[in-house]
Amino acid sequence: MDRLVLLTGWAGRVGEAILEALHTEYEWRLFDREPPHTDGPGEAYVGDITDRELLTEAMADVEAVIHLAGDSRREASWDSVLTNNIDGTQAVFDAAVAANVDRVVFASSNHAVGWYETDERVPALYRPGGPLMLDGTEAPRPGNLYGVSKVVGEVVGRYYHDEYGLSVANVRIGNLSRGQPPQDYERGQAMWLSYRDCAHLFARCLEADYEYEIIYGISDNDRKYYSIERAKDVLGYEPQDNSADHED
Amino acid sequence: MDRLVLLTGWAGRVGEAILEALHTEYEWRLFDREPPHTDGPGEAYVGDITDRELLTEAMADVEAVIHLAGDSRREASWDSVLTNNIDGTQAVFDAAVAANVDRVVFASSNHAVGWYETDERVPALYRPGGPLMLDGTEAPRPGNLYGVSKVVGEVVGRYYHDEYGLSVANVRIGNLSRGQPPQDYERGQAMWLSYRDCAHLFARCLEADYEYEIIYGISDNDRKYYSIERAKDVLGYEPQDNSADHED
Repeated sequence: MDRLVLLTGWAGRVGEAILEALHTEYEWRLFDREPPHTDGPGEAYVGDITDRELLTEAMADVEAVIHLAGDSRREASWDSVLTNNIDGTQAVFDAAVAANVDRVVFASSNHAVGWYETDERVPALYRPGGPLMLDGTEAPRPGNLYGVSKVVGEVVGRYYHDEYGLSVANVRIGNLSRGQPPQDYERGQAMWLSYRDCAHLFARCLEADYEYEIIYGISDNDRKYYSIERAKDVLGYEPQDNSADHED
Repeated sequence: MDRLVLLTGWAGRVGEAILEALHTEYEWRLFDREPPHTDGPGEAYVGDITDRELLTEAMADVEAVIHLAGDSRREASWDSVLTNNIDGTQAVFDAAVAANVDRVVFASSNHAVGWYETDERVPALYRPGGPLMLDGTEAPRPGNLYGVSKVVGEVVGRYYHDEYGLSVANVRIGNLSRGQPPQDYERGQAMWLSYRDCAHLFARCLEADYEYEIIYGISDNDRKYYSIERAKDVLGYEPQDNSADHED
């Protein structure tokens, strides 16, 4: 029998990329506060991610969690990220530990390190051979309150990993778009993540052996300033796309 | 005229250490949710640290903030630290920026890195020449949910520093006790902070020039595994105490 995976925030774009490619690879349980707009490949739970009772139900017999739920707007207010992203992520880890879940894969964001994109570095930062390469070991420098909330999720996961032993992977997702990278937008090309590379990366997070990881989720772009070496080495990530292949 | 400093959580022990030594050095505004148990050396505001309206009043004309308020129990619940420590600290930075405050000194904690105290390292870690020296550049590994909330405060400060330019010092406070260090407790001796060193360190955080700092707040103990070199170099910290001078 396939492994049972709980996917929170499944109705968003990252969930779409994952399910398109992996809907038959795992048994899915789906959680979102929006009622399903389409049939998902598993039982759907509808509720807020801070609904701890519903989370506990959804977590029963689950082996792994991919936690995408949260306010994903870069301009999200503090009140919203405090509830939906910070409290919501602690609720997921708390329920995961109670249910003896083996691993949690957390959708972090490039905005966790947005303040490395200073005026002095941009736009050189977005071009091959730029002035900086981030690899996940640098101190977080969130670029907005949404980014703060993503760093908090990584820290919450660090604690639950250390205290309870479950594996935790934090994927700092770049710019996910279907088909081709954003045009006339160097930043988006530097952190492009294709749909198939996204699904493959999350699959590796479900399959590989690791303790606690912070990795960048981008395709193998020529322009990159996020290293994908750690994802390759530890997770066996093998991206197939490169935004340079789509430039005029 | 003396600089006006807002001290939140002034009725606790850290506030006591600071005010005993520095009550005549600055003009103080005092904020705590407990009504004053004693006359403080300044105007007292009584309210929750998440009371943004009251914080805005208390912040008027303030040059610097020392932010101590929060649930300081290592066993504090998630609900308590989410409100009092996480939301409360964002409220302080938000009000500080709105009031054009020059700097915020944040009371972080040794519990931000409590999970470095693993079974393999303890008790050697608490003895001179131990296996590890933390200096504030290491990745946080909080030892409890209280520690998680302190790391979050540091990250919130990082964002407000980068975005708005105010200076931010995070003091990871050790084991503050009056007169002498804890007896028969090696951990407490390794991270002892005397009252006078505490007051001096916070005074240096009010006086020195810096951008964003994470430093450890301990006396110059022989046993230390927290480096105080950064506090010496950047802040001019000159501790006078050493827990070894109090051992039998």
